Amino acid sequence: MPQDRRTRSRTAPRGSGSPSALRRANTERVLRHLRSSGASTQADLARATGLSPATVSNLVRSLVDDGRVATGTTTASGRRATQVTLVPQAGRQVALGIDVGRRHVRVVVATESGEVVGESAHELPAGHRASECLQVVADLVSEVRVAADHAGHRLVGAGLGIPGPVDVRTGLVGHGAILPEWVGLPVAETFAERLGMPVHVDNDATLGALAEARWGAYKGVQDLVYVKVASGVGSGLVLGGRVHRGHLGMTGEIGHLPVAAYGQVCRCGNRGCLETVASVPSMLAALGVSAGRLPRTSELISLVQAGDPAALRVLEDAGAALGQVCGGLCNVINPAVIAVGGPLTAVGEALLPSIRHGLSRATTPAVAEATVLTLTTLGDRTEALGAAALAHSAD
Amino acid sequence: MPQDRRTRSRTAPRGSGSPSALRRANTERVLRHLRSSGASTQADLARATGLSPATVSNLVRSLVDDGRVATGTTTASGRRATQVTLVPQAGRQVALGIDVGRRHVRVVVATESGEVVGESAHELPAGHRASECLQVVADLVSEVRVAADHAGHRLVGAGLGIPGPVDVRTGLVGHGAILPEWVGLPVAETFAERLGMPVHVDNDATLGALAEARWGAYKGVQDLVYVKVASGVGSGLVLGGRVHRGHLGMTGEIGHLPVAAYGQVCRCGNRGCLETVASVPSMLAALGVSAGRLPRTSELISLVQAGDPAALRVLEDAGAALGQVCGGLCNVINPAVIAVGGPLTAVGEALLPSIRHGLSRATTPAVAEATVLTLTTLGDRTEALGAAALAHSAD
Repeated sequence: MPQDRRTRSRTAPRGSGSPSALRRANTERVLRHLRSSGASTQADLARATGLSPATVSNLVRSLVDDGRVATGTTTASGRRATQVTLVPQAGRQVALGIDVGRRHVRVVVATESGEVVGESAHELPAGHRASECLQVVADLVSEVRVAADHAGHRLVGAGLGIPGPVDVRTGLVGHGAILPEWVGLPVAETFAERLGMPVHVDNDATLGALAEARWGAYKGVQDLVYVKVASGVGSGLVLGGRVHRGHLGMTGEIGHLPVAAYGQVCRCGNRGCLETVASVPSMLAALGVSAGRLPRTSELISLVQAGDPAALRVLEDAGAALGQVCGGLCNVINPAVIAVGGPLTAVGEALLPSIRHGLSRATTPAVAEATVLTLTTLGDRTEALGAAALAHSAD
Repeated sequence: MPQDRRTRSRTAPRGSGSPSALRRANTERVLRHLRSSGASTQADLARATGLSPATVSNLVRSLVDDGRVATGTTTASGRRATQVTLVPQAGRQVALGIDVGRRHVRVVVATESGEVVGESAHELPAGHRASECLQVVADLVSEVRVAADHAGHRLVGAGLGIPGPVDVRTGLVGHGAILPEWVGLPVAETFAERLGMPVHVDNDATLGALAEARWGAYKGVQDLVYVKVASGVGSGLVLGGRVHRGHLGMTGEIGHLPVAAYGQVCRCGNRGCLETVASVPSMLAALGVSAGRLPRTSELISLVQAGDPAALRVLEDAGAALGQVCGGLCNVINPAVIAVGGPLTAVGEALLPSIRHGLSRATTPAVAEATVLTLTTLGDRTEALGAAALAHSAD
């Protein structure tokens, strides 16, 4: 899944016809052949890829310098030949995936195949400052780096997921972010300087979609939506096998689609947005009316698991609204898989029936039947894994 | 813009790693270089593309056989060399684009650059049978073929746009089509047999998006939505530079997104769908209440142009609903351009302000400002041109 637009390296040529894009594409061809066919001579690589022997030799030299492949001498058709092999599994390339939420930070270290070889998480106070968050991230990164270095892994960089839109033109966090202090902040540059490595930033739900499509139970699926239900409601899109970022990088903003004509006024200024019904805070507020006080997320989960009627009703109404919007997504972009993530996935499969019902009401039977609706298949780590995947593909 | 999924040739390999996909990609590299740099020696082509001289020679041989390029002898660095040129403009490759509506058929003959070199159109009675339509199409095709043959053009095949979804799994027209008799019909096979050439079928709004993105005023744009307001309301999507067909080929179905909670029951069975407010028949019906009889589309257009308050009100309400849905599309897929087509574009720019207002209410200011809203830039031919573009890219 090529990552063709990011918040950093925006000066890199984007067309497929530029020399460096051509070189990247040729490098990927060589690596793909080595992955699928194992060790190969340079002559084999030239034949299999259609590239000239000189081009192959040139690419292999760079890959050796980068530690991606190793060369040796072999005999082919009775003549000496250069044998090229992928570097062995020990000392693998790993990337950091950082997921920043309103009240948490999680850091994973993941290999190119999505195996987690290091992990650490930390709670943050609600309303924390960006500088506090940066400090916590730096500490967690130091912690997980020690283990990765010890294992001889080679760190290629970091990905960072944030709960807000990232403008692809400027790399800045856009309005509507769950962390208002971050709006307008050059996040990639700030984190890169602090961590001393390249940092690629994207919206957390977009990264969730990337992780599911690359490493989840439905990996390889061409069209997938990841719906994140948390402090806000957002989604990420993989379409035609690629992350879809659109014109400005503000895609999947389903939290502000209208679901109630004269509903509550939303933090965005509109009325009756999905977030006014289906975000976790709106569910807690609704439950608080009958409870007489504002419950915590963990209480909502316990009440649902205990079968509390008010909690189930709140969850069902939120699910119906989410389902209506998911049905609309089916009508517009017709994904094969919709994966739901966020803290409420702790209640398990009980989250899904009302979403499925709402979805069925809002799209055609053929599409509803053909669309897989599932809880995220990567647990709490989905967004952090997507951040690591972003860093790997930026390599 | 690669066309990677179609209703025919569904057995072709889809991955980019297969030999024939590799060959297509290499062929495209060679042609791209010839287009941008003009006549080149085979050695130049090998250097510019990174392909081996043997691969280039092989590809050039096939292109000569296909009549795409011609070869000659030249001198480069004092030595004889093979010079490769694109075939000249006379005797160009052309494709048929066929657009079938509820009451019309249009056929265009278009070159690879979208120039129309032949055209014919015919009205059909409402509720016509598929067999009648097939006869009319066959007659129109015979007519335009004579002129194309006479000019020495080489016909590569036909594209066909229909007002309904086409299931990419089966190639059959899906439920919800504006021509109910066509549902379940193997359209591609039926037309291919009758016309004696390959026929590629797709939804007409999808083809409208393809035409706009490839040959319209905003050609080359990566993310574009074409909204067709006619007997139904539909849209087509070009995302990341490619037509987006989704899991089943049922994308852009905005006509059945809800806009009115307790609105009229729609032909799809749901309530308050966009089509119940913004399709041409629904506008005519609304206008008929005050007029006392059902007006025709041409009357609606004349009344709007004359400033009739009832007609303007109907148009404004439809525009507000269309705009609300377009704003939702902006939130979800963030296109750079939204182009509006269909018979009502005859009223001109007056169609756009209410759509723009509705759009602005439904998305963020940054996105609303950055999204171009325009009438289709290809006139009445948009869908037919898209069909021709489909046939060209299937070559």
